[in-house]
Formats: sequence, C-alpha cells, structure tokens
Amino acid sequence: MSKLVLHEYSPSGNCYKIRLTAAHLGIPIERREYDILKGETRTPAFLGGVNANGRIPVLQVGDRFLPESNAACFYLAEGSALIPADAFDRADMLRWMFFEQYNHEPNVATLRFWLAYVGEAQLTDLQKALIPGKIAAGEAAMTLLDEQLGRSPFLVGDAFSLADICLFAYSHVAEAGGFDLGRWPHVQRWIAAIAAMPGHVTIDA
Amino acid sequence: MSKLVLHEYSPSGNCYKIRLTAAHLGIPIERREYDILKGETRTPAFLGGVNANGRIPVLQVGDRFLPESNAACFYLAEGSALIPADAFDRADMLRWMFFEQYNHEPNVATLRFWLAYVGEAQLTDLQKALIPGKIAAGEAAMTLLDEQLGRSPFLVGDAFSLADICLFAYSHVAEAGGFDLGRWPHVQRWIAAIAAMPGHVTIDA
Repeated sequence: MSKLVLHEYSPSGNCYKIRLTAAHLGIPIERREYDILKGETRTPAFLGGVNANGRIPVLQVGDRFLPESNAACFYLAEGSALIPADAFDRADMLRWMFFEQYNHEPNVATLRFWLAYVGEAQLTDLQKALIPGKIAAGEAAMTLLDEQLGRSPFLVGDAFSLADICLFAYSHVAEAGGFDLGRWPHVQRWIAAIAAMPGHVTIDA
Repeated sequence: MSKLVLHEYSPSGNCYKIRLTAAHLGIPIERREYDILKGETRTPAFLGGVNANGRIPVLQVGDRFLPESNAACFYLAEGSALIPADAFDRADMLRWMFFEQYNHEPNVATLRFWLAYVGEAQLTDLQKALIPGKIAAGEAAMTLLDEQLGRSPFLVGDAFSLADICLFAYSHVAEAGGFDLGRWPHVQRWIAAIAAMPGHVTIDA
C-alpha cells in the first residue's frame, strides 16, 4: 500500500473514524492537522491541492486524495473482516454508513460542533433556529440505532464492521451536543463494547 | 438473486437511481408505489414492515429490506462493470456517492421537492429561510461536479460507474429546483452522454 497521510482536524468524528479503522487494521497513517475554526481548509493551497470541497478528512494515498470519511474507511478495510463477506450484509453495512451521513452526522455531529466548539453565542440566528429540528432528528437517528442494537450486538448482525466504527464516532460523544445517552441503553452497551475491544483507540489519542 | 421489490415514490431521484442501475444491468424489479405527500411511508405498516426510518426507497431482497438508495445501487451492481475493479477507484466512486448524500441531495434534491412538489406557498417559515443557503450549497456541489467532469468524461475516470448514476439522478432535473444547468457545461455534456447510453431509462419511465 502507498504511503498514507490523513489530512484532518483531530476532534472531528469524521477524522476519528479513519484513525479507528486504521488502528483496528494495524495500518500506520501519518497525520496532518488543520484548524477548521481558523479556516485552514479553505485556503487556496488546500482547495487546490487536497480537496476542492474544502473539507476534512481527506486520506492521501501516495499522490492521490480521497475525501469523504466513510469512503476512506472502506478503502482501508477492503479485504478485512471489517467488511462483511456476505453481499447483502455488505450492502447493509453501507446502508448504515449512508444513514450516518444523511440522518445522523448533520444532527448529532453538527450540534456537538455548534455547542462544544463554535459556541452557542457565536451561532447565526438561522443556525439557532435550526437547533430544535436537529435535536429531534438526532434523537430519531439515535433511537433507530438503539432499536437495531436491541436486535443484534452490532449494526450488521454479530460481527463488528465499518458500520459500527462510522456510527460510534459521533454517537459516543453525542452528550457534547446535548443528547442524553441514558435514553438509549442498547447504544450505551454497544459503545462500552466497542471501547473495550482490542485495537481500540480513543478520539483524543 | 432473490425476488426484488422496489418500495418507492417514483418521482424521487433516490428511487430512480435504483431503477437506472437495474436497467443498465438488465435486472427486473417489481415496483410498489407510496405517495410520500400523503404520508404513506409514515404508517405503522410501513414503519414496522419496510423501513423504521419512514423513507423510500427501500429495496426488498426476498424477505430482507435494504434502505438507502446508494446502498441498494451497490447491492445490485456488485461484480458488474458499474463498480471499478481498481481499489482506489472503487473507494473514489463511494466518495462521490457519500458526497451526493451529504452535499448534493440535501440541497439540489430538496429544493426540487420543495419548489416543484410541495410548493413554495406551503413551506414553513424556517424552510423558506433555508432556501438561500441551499441554493448556494447546491451551486457549490454542481460546480464541484463540473470541475471534475472537466477533467474526466465520468466522475471516476473514463468508465461510467454508480457514481455517475447516483449524481445524474438529481443533477439532470436540477432545473426543477431553480438551478440553471447552463452554468455547468461539463455537467450538461455528461448528462447528454448518460441519457444517450444503451440501457438508459428516463425518470418518468
């Protein structure tokens, strides 16, 4: 495999997913930090050389650049036990990863970013007006996770997969966005199980 | 392959992606229609039997249910030429599909739905307040597509892949959301090329 460089803002759960995937697979990754609060991913150098979309994470593979956290996790994990061997299960894993980006991240992660990093006083009036809807949608996403985790130990049956890594990343720090994890006991059990796995690394590691 | 049933609202680009993938692969799919404007995907029967997330499309495979349009396309296309054989290219295809769900669909598709299906007069004040941001973010997503399509005939190099299908679905009807496709000549060339391909079906077929 070519040399891997993770272009990241380390508190981001999207960046953490890639580090956690790499840790479980024993793949070394060089890390390069950008402060998104200071606009360091909107510079001409970043937009022209790393990601025209102005976002982190980006996984650099040799001289090629791969944006989108869940795509980077998939790249690292292909051929490993983190991707189910069964075709339906593999698609079901991707189903949870698309759900994460559409229903979970824009609510659970955004509220954490707004409240714990930007600060509520710094939000625009429109952002403030969006908070109740994001709380409701984030709670619905966490409830859907909890229902699935009441049926199976991991999101796709009995085996730990990228679906778990990608949804763990922001779920386990959801309290920073104002969510009470006590409402979702199956999610809590699953968070504890993942945190206790061999190969686990924490978000601040 | 087990019997396939697409639970759908046919004007939805997310549902169309799956029909277009199946058409290119020559896979027959039975279709079952739900009117989302009448809440037909929020009934207890739908939530309990098809998708607890209350959304279409859902691809039914025998007696299993697969939500999330891009996951369903992946399931249908595995092992076909619609998924690149090269590992980086395969991840790069997924990168565009995650970009679609995060940056493109919530803006380009949502404005089409709000303006052409719900009707601007029926929107809430909060939805109306979100329109300028969604226009700007949708234009940015279309511009990013256009830049990529200025570098290569399809989103992942020279070969048509699921990335093209998933981004074609809402891009080619973006004018219904108020976007002027004339601004993005590479996107226009790519839309015309896809529409002329053997096996193509239109969104209203």
